This record gives sequence, structure tokens and C-alpha cells, in this order.
Amino acid sequence: MNDREGRPSGLRQRTRRAVQAEIAATAMQLFLEQGFESTTMEQIAVEIGISRRSLFRYFDTKEDIVLGDHAEHGRTLRAALEARPADEPPWEALRAAFKVLVESLPYTPEGFLKITSMLHASPTLRGRQLERQQQWTELLLPDITGRLGATADTMTELRARALIACALACSETAMEMWVRSNGTVDIEGAFDEAIAAVRA
Amino acid sequence: MNDREGRPSGLRQRTRRAVQAEIAATAMQLFLEQGFESTTMEQIAVEIGISRRSLFRYFDTKEDIVLGDHAEHGRTLRAALEARPADEPPWEALRAAFKVLVESLPYTPEGFLKITSMLHASPTLRGRQLERQQQWTELLLPDITGRLGATADTMTELRARALIACALACSETAMEMWVRSNGTVDIEGAFDEAIAAVRA
Repeated sequence: MNDREGRPSGLRQRTRRAVQAEIAATAMQLFLEQGFESTTMEQIAVEIGISRRSLFRYFDTKEDIVLGDHAEHGRTLRAALEARPADEPPWEALRAAFKVLVESLPYTPEGFLKITSMLHASPTLRGRQLERQQQWTELLLPDITGRLGATADTMTELRARALIACALACSETAMEMWVRSNGTVDIEGAFDEAIAAVRA
Repeated sequence: MNDREGRPSGLRQRTRRAVQAEIAATAMQLFLEQGFESTTMEQIAVEIGISRRSLFRYFDTKEDIVLGDHAEHGRTLRAALEARPADEPPWEALRAAFKVLVESLPYTPEGFLKITSMLHASPTLRGRQLERQQQWTELLLPDITGRLGATADTMTELRARALIACALACSETAMEMWVRSNGTVDIEGAFDEAIAAVRA
């Protein structure tokens, strides 16, 4: 059963996620063994023991297996942002929302480090990820524009877009340092430090 | 004659740039008429009246014709940054360096607007552009780390990376608003406004 916005709900969603997590785990093994570019959807299907067609029911592209459901992450981010007090300033609300997103990801720290390292090592994947993250901006725009407390003119939109883009940039920078330190740097601490540097 | 870093210098560089600009102008016509994805390097070569092989001497890929020489833009940005007073704070130096980059681009405002609009409309091109811009971070890192005036530890590197990523994000946001306004918003003013919003 889908809800009004066409998202699978309840049990079906949980089942689907469990299958996706299993596929992702198997695919990640192959990616890490033989490289992302050299692994085909065919090989992933064979390894899992399902048909290629069934595999495509869970993931549209090979990139999606690594990048995860960016549309869903965007919705998580928006919901987390909208749950913040209406009078909280933009940076504080964005910081809190990004922390909710990281905590919502269905990975162990070790698994997440492997995925992020692979992403940062592949220019193709990295490009796709950055391109998809751009789409989050549109989802977060109404909330941040509202927090800027002004009429929705071009300059307010510009300010809101800049704040969202920089929150993303700080989050990506924190991830980058986390990967470079092989998981020893604290992600949340790094994210806070990045924001503080930019606001200084 | 190439200089020590293997870059063509003087007359040869100017000639090469003039040919590249001519190729880019012709290619852009084709891209705008029939779409970026549907245009081949073969067609571009035929339209210009040179061999496919000669074309590849000026541009490695079709994307490069639109994106320009990102490595060269990176060098321009670094040189502009390093030319700023050593005691200028990071944000002020980054803001000045990005303005030098925009002014150095070999386009008319109309041509630049067309190119940027096409870039923003194609997720593939946009992804490649964002991925290539990531490489600028490494070029600018030594200068910004120095301006932070601290020992080069992990946290200083994090702060420097965050500042560079946010300068890029503000520049991209300004471009985005410029494209959305069909060239009516002032790019430099938008860039300053974006930075002010993020530092507030």
C-alpha cells in the first residue's frame, strides 16, 4: 500500500528496505573485490541468486546501490528540518537536520566508511552524488526561506540557497576528513568545526 | 615552447586558445540546436571542417568543450589567491580570487549565460563539473591553510577545506541565480550576498 505521495508504507517498506540492504551488502563485496566500474548488474544478480529483472525492481542503476535512495534521504532531511523550532536560525536548524540524516542511514560505521571511501575514490560516482545532492536544495528551500523571515524575493532565495549549499559543503567536508582519517575523526565534531570555520 | 610546468607559453598559447574558442563557438551552436547528448565529436569536426583527430588535439572530450579547461581555471584561481596579501583573511581572499576567475573567462556575457544555462540543465554535465571543481580544493588548500595561521594539523585542514568548499558553493549559487534570472541579477553582487548570508 502506498501513501498519498506514492511511497510504500509500513510492512512493505520495511521488507523492501531489508531486501535492498541485503542486495547492497552483496554488491559492495563485489565492488570492493573487483572495483565499481568492472562490476555489472548481471554479476550482482547472479551472486545474489535472483534474476536481473528482479534486481532492477530494487535498484534502477548500479550507482543507486552505492548512493542509496537520495530522494528518500532528501525527504528525511526535509522532515528533520521542518521538525526544528520555527524561530531557530537557519544554520542551527540545518546542522541539526544533517545530524538526523547521518543517524538515519542503515549502515554500520564500518560499512558506511567503506561505501564513502569508494564514493570518494571514484570520480564518476562522486559526480553523480554531487549532482543528486543538488536536488535536496529544492526540498529544503521553503523551510530555510521561511527562517530568513523575509518576503520571498530573489535575494532571500539567493541567501537560502547559499546557506543550504554551504551546509551540504560542510557535511561533505566532514565526510572527506572522516574518510581520510580512516574513520578516526569524529564526524559530528568535524561537521561542527567546519561550520564554525565558515561562519568565523 | 612550453614553460617548466609543460604549459604552452606566449604566442603558441594564444593561438591555441583562439582555435579552442572558435571550436567552442561552433560546437555550442550545435549543442543548442540539437542538444548536448545528441551531438557527436564527429559532427563538430565536420562542421568546423577539420579532422576528428585534429579536434581531439584541442579537446579531450565533448564535456571539455562546454566545461572549458578546468585545470587551467584551477591554476588561475590559485594564482589569484596567492596574489592576495598574506595577512588577508580566508573569506576576503577567496572572494577576490573567484572574481578574478570569472573575469578571466573567454566568453561574452551572452555566450557565458548560454553555456551556464546548458550546464545547469544537463545533470550529466553538471555532475562532471562539480566533480572537476572538487580538484580545485587541493590547489587552493596550501594558501588557505597558511591564512588560517596555524600549524597544519587535521583540524586546520578541515577548516581550510570547509572554507574553500563554501566559497565554491557560494559561487555556484550566484551562478544559479544569474541563470534563473536570465542574466539580469548581477553575478558579483549575488556572490557577495551569498557569502554574507553564510557568515551571518
